[in-house]
Amino acid sequence: MQMSKQDPKLRLGMIGGGPSSFIGPVHRMAARMSNSYELCATVLSSDAKKSTQLGIEMGMKSERAYPDWKAMIEREKSLPDGIEVLAIMTPNDLHYPIASAALDAGLHIICDKPLCNNLENAKILVHKTKEKQRVFCVTYNYSAYPMVRQARAMINNGDLGEIRQVHLEYIQSHMAESSPPYNWRFDSEKGGQSLVVGDIGTHAYHLGSYVTGLELDELMADLGSSIPGRSMDDYTSCLLRYENGARGSLWVTNAAAGAEHGLSFRIFGEKGGLEWHQENPNILRHRRLNGFEQIMTRRKDGKLYPTAEDSMRLVIGHPEGFHDAFANLYMEVAAEIRSLPQNINKVADEISFPTVVDGLKGVNFIYTIIASNKDRSWKNCRIK
Amino acid sequence: MQMSKQDPKLRLGMIGGGPSSFIGPVHRMAARMSNSYELCATVLSSDAKKSTQLGIEMGMKSERAYPDWKAMIEREKSLPDGIEVLAIMTPNDLHYPIASAALDAGLHIICDKPLCNNLENAKILVHKTKEKQRVFCVTYNYSAYPMVRQARAMINNGDLGEIRQVHLEYIQSHMAESSPPYNWRFDSEKGGQSLVVGDIGTHAYHLGSYVTGLELDELMADLGSSIPGRSMDDYTSCLLRYENGARGSLWVTNAAAGAEHGLSFRIFGEKGGLEWHQENPNILRHRRLNGFEQIMTRRKDGKLYPTAEDSMRLVIGHPEGFHDAFANLYMEVAAEIRSLPQNINKVADEISFPTVVDGLKGVNFIYTIIASNKDRSWKNCRIK
Amino acid sequence: MQMSKQDPKLRLGMIGGGPSSFIGPVHRMAARMSNSYELCATVLSSDAKKSTQLGIEMGMKSERAYPDWKAMIEREKSLPDGIEVLAIMTPNDLHYPIASAALDAGLHIICDKPLCNNLENAKILVHKTKEKQRVFCVTYNYSAYPMVRQARAMINNGDLGEIRQVHLEYIQSHMAESSPPYNWRFDSEKGGQSLVVGDIGTHAYHLGSYVTGLELDELMADLGSSIPGRSMDDYTSCLLRYENGARGSLWVTNAAAGAEHGLSFRIFGEKGGLEWHQENPNILRHRRLNGFEQIMTRRKDGKLYPTAEDSMRLVIGHPEGFHDAFANLYMEVAAEIRSLPQNINKVADEISFPTVVDGLKGVNFIYTIIASNKDRSWKNCRIK
Amino acid sequence: MQMSKQDPKLRLGMIGGGPSSFIGPVHRMAARMSNSYELCATVLSSDAKKSTQLGIEMGMKSERAYPDWKAMIEREKSLPDGIEVLAIMTPNDLHYPIASAALDAGLHIICDKPLCNNLENAKILVHKTKEKQRVFCVTYNYSAYPMVRQARAMINNGDLGEIRQVHLEYIQSHMAESSPPYNWRFDSEKGGQSLVVGDIGTHAYHLGSYVTGLELDELMADLGSSIPGRSMDDYTSCLLRYENGARGSLWVTNAAAGAEHGLSFRIFGEKGGLEWHQENPNILRHRRLNGFEQIMTRRKDGKLYPTAEDSMRLVIGHPEGFHDAFANLYMEVAAEIRSLPQNINKVADEISFPTVVDGLKGVNFIYTIIASNKDRSWKNCRIK
Repeated sequence: MQMSKQDPKLRLGMIGGGPSSFIGPVHRMAARMSNSYELCATVLSSDAKKSTQLGIEMGMKSERAYPDWKAMIEREKSLPDGIEVLAIMTPNDLHYPIASAALDAGLHIICDKPLCNNLENAKILVHKTKEKQRVFCVTYNYSAYPMVRQARAMINNGDLGEIRQVHLEYIQSHMAESSPPYNWRFDSEKGGQSLVVGDIGTHAYHLGSYVTGLELDELMADLGSSIPGRSMDDYTSCLLRYENGARGSLWVTNAAAGAEHGLSFRIFGEKGGLEWHQENPNILRHRRLNGFEQIMTRRKDGKLYPTAEDSMRLVIGHPEGFHDAFANLYMEVAAEIRSLPQNINKVADEISFPTVVDGLKGVNFIYTIIASNKDRSWKNCRIK
Repeated sequence: MQMSKQDPKLRLGMIGGGPSSFIGPVHRMAARMSNSYELCATVLSSDAKKSTQLGIEMGMKSERAYPDWKAMIEREKSLPDGIEVLAIMTPNDLHYPIASAALDAGLHIICDKPLCNNLENAKILVHKTKEKQRVFCVTYNYSAYPMVRQARAMINNGDLGEIRQVHLEYIQSHMAESSPPYNWRFDSEKGGQSLVVGDIGTHAYHLGSYVTGLELDELMADLGSSIPGRSMDDYTSCLLRYENGARGSLWVTNAAAGAEHGLSFRIFGEKGGLEWHQENPNILRHRRLNGFEQIMTRRKDGKLYPTAEDSMRLVIGHPEGFHDAFANLYMEVAAEIRSLPQNINKVADEISFPTVVDGLKGVNFIYTIIASNKDRSWKNCRIK
Repeated sequence: MQMSKQDPKLRLGMIGGGPSSFIGPVHRMAARMSNSYELCATVLSSDAKKSTQLGIEMGMKSERAYPDWKAMIEREKSLPDGIEVLAIMTPNDLHYPIASAALDAGLHIICDKPLCNNLENAKILVHKTKEKQRVFCVTYNYSAYPMVRQARAMINNGDLGEIRQVHLEYIQSHMAESSPPYNWRFDSEKGGQSLVVGDIGTHAYHLGSYVTGLELDELMADLGSSIPGRSMDDYTSCLLRYENGARGSLWVTNAAAGAEHGLSFRIFGEKGGLEWHQENPNILRHRRLNGFEQIMTRRKDGKLYPTAEDSMRLVIGHPEGFHDAFANLYMEVAAEIRSLPQNINKVADEISFPTVVDGLKGVNFIYTIIASNKDRSWKNCRIK
Repeated sequence: MQMSKQDPKLRLGMIGGGPSSFIGPVHRMAARMSNSYELCATVLSSDAKKSTQLGIEMGMKSERAYPDWKAMIEREKSLPDGIEVLAIMTPNDLHYPIASAALDAGLHIICDKPLCNNLENAKILVHKTKEKQRVFCVTYNYSAYPMVRQARAMINNGDLGEIRQVHLEYIQSHMAESSPPYNWRFDSEKGGQSLVVGDIGTHAYHLGSYVTGLELDELMADLGSSIPGRSMDDYTSCLLRYENGARGSLWVTNAAAGAEHGLSFRIFGEKGGLEWHQENPNILRHRRLNGFEQIMTRRKDGKLYPTAEDSMRLVIGHPEGFHDAFANLYMEVAAEIRSLPQNINKVADEISFPTVVDGLKGVNFIYTIIASNKDRSWKNCRIK
């Protein structure tokens, strides 16, 4: 997965992700690691003056250290060397207007999850992406770990037989204190109707479908706060049914005192099971019916499926981490853009990275959990 | 927890648990380890002739190698040195008639779970146990591991603060094959209405309440077979609510291909969390809010609560296992019996080992899961 | 490994191992678990009065609650139902005189390690054991864990190919404090010339040879105290060469602050490697050249070698521990005794449990380490 | 450790590390991740034509895609915008001539380990680095992991008390096959007198001294091939003595069939112990005398020492890996260069990254092992 020739770099713009954010430096690191982008234009704060100043400090030319996102999209589309790709890492409520305007301006998009806060807007983005024939990646970045892709390939190749049970977890401690420091996610106008599902639950959901290749059919959810008196939710647990009849469960919380990251899956099929934990991502445990468990390790020696090997850079025993996986998304988006227009219809098809269609499904998942919890009943998860 | 003086041994009878069973040798080993019982009378098969023969081979006197359970209870109660304690490990449908007759005969009882297949019968056994002032232990043996008791003591002492989240699992592979070897549990007349809940689910349920000290208030269950065409259930997943508002989930199956034993709990409170796995029972992981996780190990040096130290025999680093925990039940039942009649009213109160009341709750849990699954709705778990 | 018929129990005597010791209760538990012995006579203290009193409290008849070991051996040999087997768990310096007298009295012996403190005496015990045609077990009890035996069987069957590297560890914390509580082992008259090698180092050495089937050829040792000013040793590290040219190393200490038990081996051969830790003894890690590591678990379903299955009682996922392994020695000694006189020449041959010959090798190992450390040079390990 | 302002990038040249090598892409990734360098000139093959072609493909201007290293150093020093830093990743025998010429040309250096094959040359490089007042980093990259630095800070701050025992391992499988694919390291002219010590042993040695802050005083080595008939060594095991009297041992091999990376340390002091494994580098196990082990995890929330926090980019639970640690070296070298000339005398002093002095010690370690093994005796490790 190294570029054999030095292709010209794609011109990248970023909206959101100032230097004090967590995710901004991650996107910029991923872009550098991919060796495929040049960061040319930024909006780094909702405060116009600060945005410009931060952009200049980050090395932008002053006229491309924009004060706000509208100015950026408007001006860049008129430049002969304007940006080609836009990375969006604002609060969730701005994803839709920015992405929509960017598609109209002909930009390819890398957008944080959830895609947006409103289901109808999500559908519009899917439609517009296809219409404009653009590449649109939603950063379900955990699906880019090599051993996650190994799991997907194993299941797709039938190594586990028919899938029967799926268990998904995302267990954090960030909001385990009664009064955690303020965060825009606490404001449902910005963060969306469910904090915990929008912020982390959709990652777990996406991982389940990504690895099994199965659509979620129905769910029954318990959603709420595990801390009395707290207004926003911090916990959901769901019963799941996948399209093939496989049963499952999901446990997502950011209020588990002392937990760290805790994203994991355990999946069982006819012939065995797979277990993966993001905190130690280079390992995939493979349980085998009537056999011993084997510990599959990330390694580039022909023992893993090509899709896994293509997602890694290092040889056996040298751990890769969060940055390496995130960089895979940037690398694959670049490769996809470079393959246009031949691949033009692949945008929403089976490609390695998560797309706007995955983003739509994630928004629908949030809606379904809220509805199920409200009615205390099973709900269908298919997009109408 | 060693006996300082050699008390006279309690005279023990056993019904069920022939030498080719799994659980029979376990009970006998536990009795020997406790050093508190003498096995005097047996019924080791439903085939009368075989029962007598196996008893004699096991060293019983021929007249106490009984052909059937009725004969044993009838004759033993007339002997001056008749059995004082009866251990029952038959198929589930026989638990009630045997236990009922044994209580009538004035015997103390150690009975495998589930207590019985019928809720009304379970209530009768509770009533009769109190009336007859007998000791009645139901072998929820996993609650006898020292580190489980340490967890219970920590929570009881407030080390975790208020409990907020409970996650229980029991994941086995015994029925992952499409056609596992025949077992009486496949017959609901013998095994009860739910195979998977009766056989292993009640263990997980009991552990959750035992460790947290919380009653389960409501549940929402998905119950069924994960293998198409199978008549008996092999999977349940539930959403849980405990009496204090804590939320939880449970995943129980014996059809997870390649899993082994997989009984575990993870419990989070205000100040931290605890995690325990039966497969490595000498360790209790203690996550701490704003601190590092510590690995609590079974050890007898004053670092654990007395209830944990009292449940172990070995010093730091020397692993105890399944037999050691099972033997705790036998030892504690013996101590309880020896403390009669002073402790007569403690039978259904807070004592270290699980009693007939826990057995009743377990039967009620099975009923509630079946009802919730049938209606696809939340159900109250309290015993009416 | 269950007895199908109830053989008459062997009459057992014990010298040492009072109720406040660690090892006494372990021996008694192992004897009970094996279901093959009746404890008939004891010497439980070096204080004659206390010895008698403790014996009576343990249920001995007063005339068999002996005040000292000479009285016991003398009187028991004259009884028609005198003891047949003697378990010795005194301080090390008494092993030789007691064992020697017991052999002369025709007793079979189960003796704690090290066999004795003097190499010539060890040779005499080997000679006398053969001459008297007795069964003599030295309690290198860690070799009785099922997964240790699986490792031995795998290597013996060539599953690893030729053995190339052996690494042994025994890392404890018992003497990590500058001034640990007094212990007879601090007195070299009682404990022998090396505390750390005699107490735990010989276990690690025995395990290395037991599992690989290889004799140690040469060693180069560093032996001493890791705490300045301490008179007794608490640390040894050695370079090893086995008879087939395999290289190895050994790290043994009881002064590693915060360690627990820490007995382990890692062994590599042409085709792969094995790793085992006593703290989690139900698992054997099997690394495979050009393959993934597999986690072999103790289980009784035909996936392990018969020698491993014969050493276990419980099915998959139900952990066995220290007591279960120790009980294997008692069970196997009983089986060996019952097979006499047909097996009379097997005493020092290849049998499942460690014998007096292993005891002699252990004493020789202690001598060799001391000599190597003194001269700071490699020494031959073969018994002259 | 993010740059708050965008400093101008340092101009970097690379010799060695073609695209098909393992280490070349790692260096380039690290340089990009650090965001502090611009790669301007390359020599990517010992074949002049191929070197030029590969450089151009990598995006170099044709006149800076050099055919050989002498041409590069000669021409670059004459350019106004010539390279400032040179990264050397050739076979070991070329490290000295290239580094020496580069220092003469006034370049700062990042050089792979071992520093060179000859002890006298190593001393010359130390001398010349000081004389020329240059920054010289030797890529003992494993010391740049945040949790390794946490370990160093803990010991330096006395959290473990006086250090008493050190155990180092580096256990790989790369040469476990009888006939591994040819590698320049098999040629001692290129690779140096010891393959296994030069290639991986010096990493383990460096880690031991880096973390404890202790110089190695004496060692006793066994060095050789674990595969009969193999000419180059693949195994060493050593007994160690550090300057404060602490004892230790080391096990290094690349012929352990089925091992992966296996670089680890375990260090015990008066108050506790630390354990770290490169394969899971975000965790540091902290055993505590008379307490429970705690699992320290890489996290940026004030729980770790500043030196550890300064070496990480990601928050709790998001794993960092090999690339992240390697990038630390590039980032710190850049910071050091930018701090010149004020820090001019710090070059060989206590700084975060390993220097030419560490490189010299590593070469001396190789010499000492060879001498000890030859004489089968303890040898002093101090540089004369």
